[in-house]
Amino acid sequence: MGSEPAGDGRGAVARGRRPAGSGTREAILAAAARAFAEQGYPRTTLRGIAKDAGVDTRLVSHYFGSKQELFVSVVELPFDPDVVIPALLGPGRTGVGFRLAGFAIGIMDTPEARQTMTGLLRAAASEEAAAVLVRDLLMERLLGPLAHHLGGDDPTLRASLAASQVAGMAFTRHVVGLPRLATASRDELVGALGPVLEHYLVGDLSPPPA
Amino acid sequence: MGSEPAGDGRGAVARGRRPAGSGTREAILAAAARAFAEQGYPRTTLRGIAKDAGVDTRLVSHYFGSKQELFVSVVELPFDPDVVIPALLGPGRTGVGFRLAGFAIGIMDTPEARQTMTGLLRAAASEEAAAVLVRDLLMERLLGPLAHHLGGDDPTLRASLAASQVAGMAFTRHVVGLPRLATASRDELVGALGPVLEHYLVGDLSPPPA
Repeated sequence: MGSEPAGDGRGAVARGRRPAGSGTREAILAAAARAFAEQGYPRTTLRGIAKDAGVDTRLVSHYFGSKQELFVSVVELPFDPDVVIPALLGPGRTGVGFRLAGFAIGIMDTPEARQTMTGLLRAAASEEAAAVLVRDLLMERLLGPLAHHLGGDDPTLRASLAASQVAGMAFTRHVVGLPRLATASRDELVGALGPVLEHYLVGDLSPPPA
Repeated sequence: MGSEPAGDGRGAVARGRRPAGSGTREAILAAAARAFAEQGYPRTTLRGIAKDAGVDTRLVSHYFGSKQELFVSVVELPFDPDVVIPALLGPGRTGVGFRLAGFAIGIMDTPEARQTMTGLLRAAASEEAAAVLVRDLLMERLLGPLAHHLGGDDPTLRASLAASQVAGMAFTRHVVGLPRLATASRDELVGALGPVLEHYLVGDLSPPPA
């Protein structure tokens, strides 16, 4: 029972984020970061993470809830896909690209989110493990589910194209630092990216006439 | 006269690329790489490079020609903007985005060009000096001149938006490695990106109605 929360003297701490210094929680987070980075989101299991961290699987669930919630904790995902995706889909297919543009530009305007995202992009440029996380984040957590909900032909290609523009904007604006993107207003960028993301998500992708 | 080509025993070597082992040429290239990376393309001068390399300015011109040609040698730019930009502009404004998409996707399909480009993007993610090179490459050498030739409102914003998509495609396809972009055909990608780059370069960028 030593691996049960009630048995390690921490039973009074509510489920969720624990104060710094909680060795067990940090061991789980470290194991989860390794697992997500090395195996990718789809193949990672709470059981495997628990084994790597040397704790009971129930303890992982106790501290972090679902695999999805654990992933959010690991990369400190600055939004909850379960809230964002329905909001983007909400009013229907038309306008989903504009809503995604507003969300993507808006979230990068909050310092914490921008730091997380640019940190991930920088790391992905040099470490395959981080590239796996970025792939999962873009495709498994946000754009893939969004495109699949929207239906249409080849949702994976549509999600990937949207990812190329969303990540490309973050990369050129915040990592490479193109000056005109840094000074552009939110409205300018949403106005420019909106039709593009609409095209990728619900538009006609057939090759142009020769 | 020791810094003149005829005076260092290399007078018989034609202007242009010299065989490996030519210390003077490599010293110039190293100084140029430092200068372009630290100062950016616009502020770099052949005179400053020559001084840093300890040679006469005429020797730099002798080996490399213009500043532009030297920059191409330094980053091994896999295309010549003086050829590419007129070809993209050639038939007129309409279709320029499709032609740019074809060029950008096509050049990344050649292994040497892809290696140079992904190397620059990876370096730009961790080194400000390399980020400067990428900014210059995108904005001063290709998309900036293209957008300015096309005219219209805010060519710098247009070039920057096109850069965000071109660099974003290279980054997500070849660095992050989104699988569906790796397997997509050239026609699929050009068909998807063409209207986007057309929108950025010559389309209506005004914000959408509220």
